[in-house]
Amino acid sequence: MANRIPESTVKRLSLYLRYLREFAEQGRETVSSEDLAVRGRTTAAQVRKDLSYFGSFGKRGFGYQVGELRDRLQQILGLERTWQVAIIGAGRIGAALFGYQGFRVQGFHIVAVFDRDQQKVGVEWGDQRIEDVARMEEVIGERGIEIVIVTTPAEVAQDVVDRAVRAGVQGILNFAPTKLVVSEEVSLKNVDMAIELEALSFALSNHGASAPR
Amino acid sequence: MANRIPESTVKRLSLYLRYLREFAEQGRETVSSEDLAVRGRTTAAQVRKDLSYFGSFGKRGFGYQVGELRDRLQQILGLERTWQVAIIGAGRIGAALFGYQGFRVQGFHIVAVFDRDQQKVGVEWGDQRIEDVARMEEVIGERGIEIVIVTTPAEVAQDVVDRAVRAGVQGILNFAPTKLVVSEEVSLKNVDMAIELEALSFALSNHGASAPR
Repeated sequence: MANRIPESTVKRLSLYLRYLREFAEQGRETVSSEDLAVRGRTTAAQVRKDLSYFGSFGKRGFGYQVGELRDRLQQILGLERTWQVAIIGAGRIGAALFGYQGFRVQGFHIVAVFDRDQQKVGVEWGDQRIEDVARMEEVIGERGIEIVIVTTPAEVAQDVVDRAVRAGVQGILNFAPTKLVVSEEVSLKNVDMAIELEALSFALSNHGASAPR
Repeated sequence: MANRIPESTVKRLSLYLRYLREFAEQGRETVSSEDLAVRGRTTAAQVRKDLSYFGSFGKRGFGYQVGELRDRLQQILGLERTWQVAIIGAGRIGAALFGYQGFRVQGFHIVAVFDRDQQKVGVEWGDQRIEDVARMEEVIGERGIEIVIVTTPAEVAQDVVDRAVRAGVQGILNFAPTKLVVSEEVSLKNVDMAIELEALSFALSNHGASAPR
């Protein structure tokens, strides 16, 4: 595997995988780089470049086998396996994420939900019961939790993340509106809705002043 | 105003604004580029460069007036005014966003919630009543709605966005897991949780293979 894959390539791989799943549902057996490019509003050269990081796919002039490329992308993205995931923070965003069906389909199994509010601890959410965040380290160890989704208030996010990492967590999806610091071995992705809305507000206020992505 | 401001700069301005609000709450009157850089884990040179797109701030050797710079960033980001916002899709994510207090504080006023499900139409959410998406164009016109937050299923997202844009909407925050196409005059930001989780899964599966941001 080539190293240092650009983040933009990884995100496009996720999109190509979605398109391949659509094509498979439609019963298509082969696709070309052009088909994927048209579906994803990019260029065939970009598709080929993104895939080239991971070796050689398809046959010149014949395109790709849909099922084969889909399975290979699932493997590359680590989706052929399941991930044990915990949600920290049983508020509205935590509830929305817990209810999001897509996670389970893609192999992300939510096996714990934590909160510090004793009014919430013990409340049932689907197949889960909200647990006291004081027990987080213990539960992470017991259930082999690898990823945590952080939806706590900003001011406690760094502290819970530090604790989760010490307990063995390797990946963090952060929804708390704050910049977290983690060591290099830990992967961190941020979803900051306020920043996206402010970028929108900036773009509307300064028409044409913001560079396209 | 300089044109073509990088998106990364706009996002950092949002962060600097948060830090300035914190500093103001702590009663601080002046900050240096270094103070902002330390708080935001960046460099003083980056802070100065980001601010330099918008003219000259602060005095050499004296730093910035906290209140003055905060107000100026609010103005640059278009947050000194209010924005009329609608949520399209009254599902779990729509509910989480509707309940997010931060939007109102930052001037984003949710003045309509739409759904196509007749079981939901008429249901009260706080100060709003869910409305039939069939009436969307009319309501957008009546209430001067400028921004829509899209939380519909992927397969209907492009259609509702096309309709919203024809009715006068200029900005879109998309949570539907699909790539939307809009004309150049419309600003579009995407929040795709599945893509972020897949990027995390990729990073955990291919340790060290993903380039840092």
